[in-house]
Formats: sequence, C-alpha cells, structure tokens
Amino acid sequence: MHIAITGAAGFLGSKLAKQLLAQGSLTGRSGQPEKISRITMVDIAAPAGFSDPRIDVLVGDISDPAIIARAITPDTQSIFHLAAIVSGHAEVDFDLGMKINFDATRQILERAKSLGTKPRVVFTSSVAVFGGELPETVPDTLSPVPQSSYGAQKAMGELMVNDFSRKGYIDGRILRMPTISVRPGAPNKAASSFASGIIREPLNGQEAVCPVNGDTRMWLMSPRQAIRNLIHGHELDAGRFEASRILSLPGLSVTVREMADALTDVAGGEVAQRIQWREDEAVKRIVNSWPGNFEATRAKALGFTSDTNFSDIIRAYLQDDKTP
Amino acid sequence: MHIAITGAAGFLGSKLAKQLLAQGSLTGRSGQPEKISRITMVDIAAPAGFSDPRIDVLVGDISDPAIIARAITPDTQSIFHLAAIVSGHAEVDFDLGMKINFDATRQILERAKSLGTKPRVVFTSSVAVFGGELPETVPDTLSPVPQSSYGAQKAMGELMVNDFSRKGYIDGRILRMPTISVRPGAPNKAASSFASGIIREPLNGQEAVCPVNGDTRMWLMSPRQAIRNLIHGHELDAGRFEASRILSLPGLSVTVREMADALTDVAGGEVAQRIQWREDEAVKRIVNSWPGNFEATRAKALGFTSDTNFSDIIRAYLQDDKTP
Repeated sequence: MHIAITGAAGFLGSKLAKQLLAQGSLTGRSGQPEKISRITMVDIAAPAGFSDPRIDVLVGDISDPAIIARAITPDTQSIFHLAAIVSGHAEVDFDLGMKINFDATRQILERAKSLGTKPRVVFTSSVAVFGGELPETVPDTLSPVPQSSYGAQKAMGELMVNDFSRKGYIDGRILRMPTISVRPGAPNKAASSFASGIIREPLNGQEAVCPVNGDTRMWLMSPRQAIRNLIHGHELDAGRFEASRILSLPGLSVTVREMADALTDVAGGEVAQRIQWREDEAVKRIVNSWPGNFEATRAKALGFTSDTNFSDIIRAYLQDDKTP
Repeated sequence: MHIAITGAAGFLGSKLAKQLLAQGSLTGRSGQPEKISRITMVDIAAPAGFSDPRIDVLVGDISDPAIIARAITPDTQSIFHLAAIVSGHAEVDFDLGMKINFDATRQILERAKSLGTKPRVVFTSSVAVFGGELPETVPDTLSPVPQSSYGAQKAMGELMVNDFSRKGYIDGRILRMPTISVRPGAPNKAASSFASGIIREPLNGQEAVCPVNGDTRMWLMSPRQAIRNLIHGHELDAGRFEASRILSLPGLSVTVREMADALTDVAGGEVAQRIQWREDEAVKRIVNSWPGNFEATRAKALGFTSDTNFSDIIRAYLQDDKTP
C-alpha cells in the first residue's frame, strides 16, 4: 500500500515514517493489514536521515495542487496530514495560516474526493481549538471557541474533514493533539515552543526562557505516545466513530512548575536552574486560552493512551532524541 | 451609510431591506445612528417590489469576486450576509454548497479585510450546525456536530467570521437562526421547507405533505422576530460579545403536531386536514438531527427575543404575507 505524509520533514512526520517503515504494514483498503510498499514524504524541505527504498521524498508547497496531485494518487490508501503553520506564526501571518492550515487541507480532501478511492485521512488538530470561558476539565461535548487563528483554522479543518467523511468521500480521523513535549530540534514559532525548550535546552547546557507563569497548566503528550496514537487513530474501524470523527486525545495535565520540578528530579537542580522565568504577553495570551485538562472520554474508550508522568517523558526524550 | 444585503431577493432579505428603508437609519461606523443613503441588494435574481431610490439592485453570483467587489465598497458600513444554498440542496449538490455557503462567505470577509474599513457583518447561521447525540435543551457551550453539509459549511463560516472579527478585520455578528416559519412564497429545497408549507399551503386551499412525525420538535422563529433580531444583532455594541461572536438565538419550541393544532385553532379543522402526513426518510434524517430546544442564555441576556406561541405566528403570517 501507498501512504502519503504531509509535514513529513517535521519531527512527528519523520518519527511516524520511521515507525511505519519499522512495522512494515498498516490496515489497508481491505480492512486487513497490508504491506507498505511506498511512503511519500511531502514537505517544503527534504526530511533528513532516510535511505529506505520505500521512501519517496517530495519537496514542495502543500498548498500547490500540482504537489498534492503528485503526493496523492489512485493507489494512495492512507494520508497522514500533519503539515501546518504553527500557532504563533499563523497569528502574525494570517494569510499564510489560512493557506496552509485551511486551504491545503481542503485541496487534499478535494483531491481524495476526485479520485473516488476513499483513502483514510488522519488529520491532526489541537487543544488550540478551545478557548474563552473554560471548565476546569474539558468534556468531549464542549464547543471550540478558538482564541488564535491557528485554532480557528484547525477547527474549520475538523468540520471539513468530518463532513467529507460523513459524505463518504474520504475515511477521516481527526485527532486533537495535546501539546507535544519534549519535541527535539530547534525552537519554533509555536506559542507552545517553550514546553519543549525549557527541558531540551537546559539538558543541552543552554538557558531557555519560560514565557508563562509556573502555575500555567498544560495538556501534554510525548512524541512516543503521539506516534502510537496517530497510528492507532489510523487503524480504528470507521464504524466506531458514530456521529463525529473528531476526538480530543487523552494527555498528561501538568503545570509548568511541575515540568521544571521533574527536570530537577531527572537531571538535577543545576540543569533546571537554566530555565529563565520571563513572561511574554503575546505567548501568554495564546497559551493561557488553552485548556489544561480534558475528559477525553470517547478517545479513551476507543483505546487512545496517554503518558503517566512528566519525569518519564523526559527520560524517554533522553533515550530517543537527545543528541550528545 | 451604505448597506449591502446578500440573498436579498429571498423573503428575509427583502423584508429586511423594507424594514431598513422604513426606519431610515442604523448604527454606523461612528457608533451613532446614521441615515441610510443606499442599500445594495445582491442576489442571483432581482428582488421584486422595490422602487425606493435608495435601493441599488445587483444581480449576480455571490461567489464571483467581481460581484462582491461591486457590492462591498469602501463606503459599505454594514453587510447582512444571508445568501445560502439551503440544507436539502447542499446535501445533493455538495460542491455548490461549499461554493456558496463557504467560499462566498470567505470572499466577502476577504473583500472587507482588504478595504481596511472594518464593516459590521451580520452572518446568519442555523440550528443545523448541531447534531449527533443531543441533550433535551442545547446549552450555549455545546459543540456543533453537523449531520448535513449545510450545517458543516455554516459551522465553518461561523468560525471564520469569528476569527476575522477577533483579528479586527471586520466587526462580525453570527446569529444561529431557528427554522423560520411561516415563510411566504413557494416551497424550497430546505429540509425544513415543510415547517412553513404545512401552514401556508392549507391556508391557500392546497394540500401539503408533512414529511416528519408529529412528535418532531422544532425550534422556530417567525419572520417578524427574525427581522427584529437581525437588526438587533447589527446594533449591539461589539464589546458585549466577549470571547465569541457566535450566538444561538432564542426561539419557540413546538412539535409539528402542535403546529397542526394551532392551524386548527386559527383557521379551523377543515384547513388543518389539508396536511398530508407522509414521512420522507431523507428529510427526516436531516430534520431529526437538529435540536428542538435551546437555552440561548447569552442571546437572551443580549436582548434577542422570541415568539410566544405558534397561533400568533400564524396570525402574523395572515396579516403580513398571505396573498388572497
């Protein structure tokens, strides 16, 4: 079977491709496991570190219909659509956010619809769809009230993927991901970038700014859990979704202060003291609009899983991603 | 001030234009009442019955950027965007629904953004954004789970109008309208068309098919209340919306059987016996996915109003719209 991954040069896309190569099969159109013959990794930059002959690298703009037509072909059984302009970036460049977060998603759906092959489409959404007045714990039934353009564009995408699925044009699965921590690599323009930076940089002997208050409650997921849940979301039988393909995934609810304390536990006080607590109003406004805890009842019942504590997340980062 | 109305040849658009002509002023950019100098009525067909010199008729496709550019100009202070492909029609012609219900809305917003004049935009949404498992009474915080493409497209439009407002590109107001009854004129392709037809046609001596069960609970609003609430939504001070511009309006919760009983009360049993009870699965599937009752707490607190009983709605129809 052929699989397309957008945003494939990103850390989640790359980890997903590696996991798919390692396991070698995925549920295909038949409803049975099928051998993965080819994975097209689409991104504006080439992913690093892939030499497997099953990998097909496609460098281009995901909002370009010609690129989408090359990535998604009649033999494409599954699409993992991870490409996005992150929250902080979409807030300063509204048009670019609409183009990538919404228009590219639509073009992928329209392409899939035009083929008539009903591919599985795993679309990543985010806790950022929520905002406004929030209960302490968000139930599955709460209405998104996004307070960022990224959140609004993701929420629009959710509805669109859901309706294309309801109509039978695609077989969509919409996963609202918690903030991923610890993300390897460099800081990015996500308002949540610090949630990885305050762990990653101190472990590398560098200082990192924490732009929010220590009491800020975050809803987190480790990269390991994220990859597991992306694949689980793909594998689920379509009949189990009932009226909606949109799921808020389970996560780990921790305060930023608890994250720093876990860093002390795992790596020592000297490392944790490299966190510089310096609040930034623009980041705070966006991050504080997100919920810090969810019921995630439906997703749990469907077998999605979460991390159990933040110290283990840090240890997993040290094993999987820390470059010496 | 200049006002643009889309879908202006429809019965709500025409009634709105007449009311605006009659009252002569509306809150303008200054925040004070301003004299209405011109109303551009946009639709694919010319509205009937307008001779007032302040009326400017623009016949064209609202998804055509050239038409939008002519309708919305730097002096346009207010836009009532009512144009839509109705529920039953959008369900059978998905692409047309996307084009008019979503793309045209986006083009209107992009046009307003490009002008930099931040016009007020009143956007009509619908109870059809809701579906799936529903509580008996829908709270303001319930997440839309549309079970029709019309509902999905409206819910996407809601999020977009809200985010353009949050960014300060427009001053949007999103009103989730109950089903309007009694709508004058001919049946249309809305799944809810019967909610007017089973009253209007019997009063005209004709039979009308009721495609749903008598126990079906509807959330209704008379044309009089609809016009009042559209204008009220326009007039509200922007500061009162807080985190969201989206409001579920108050309505009247009645069963279809109660509607038929009210027709007997007002016009007699002979008239009400012209209702043919013949269920239609396609209509039932859509109509039964809609809620029959809402809390509408926010909208009530903001001064929106509802009808008090269905017999009065029928009497108002006889006064305002019944053609002998």
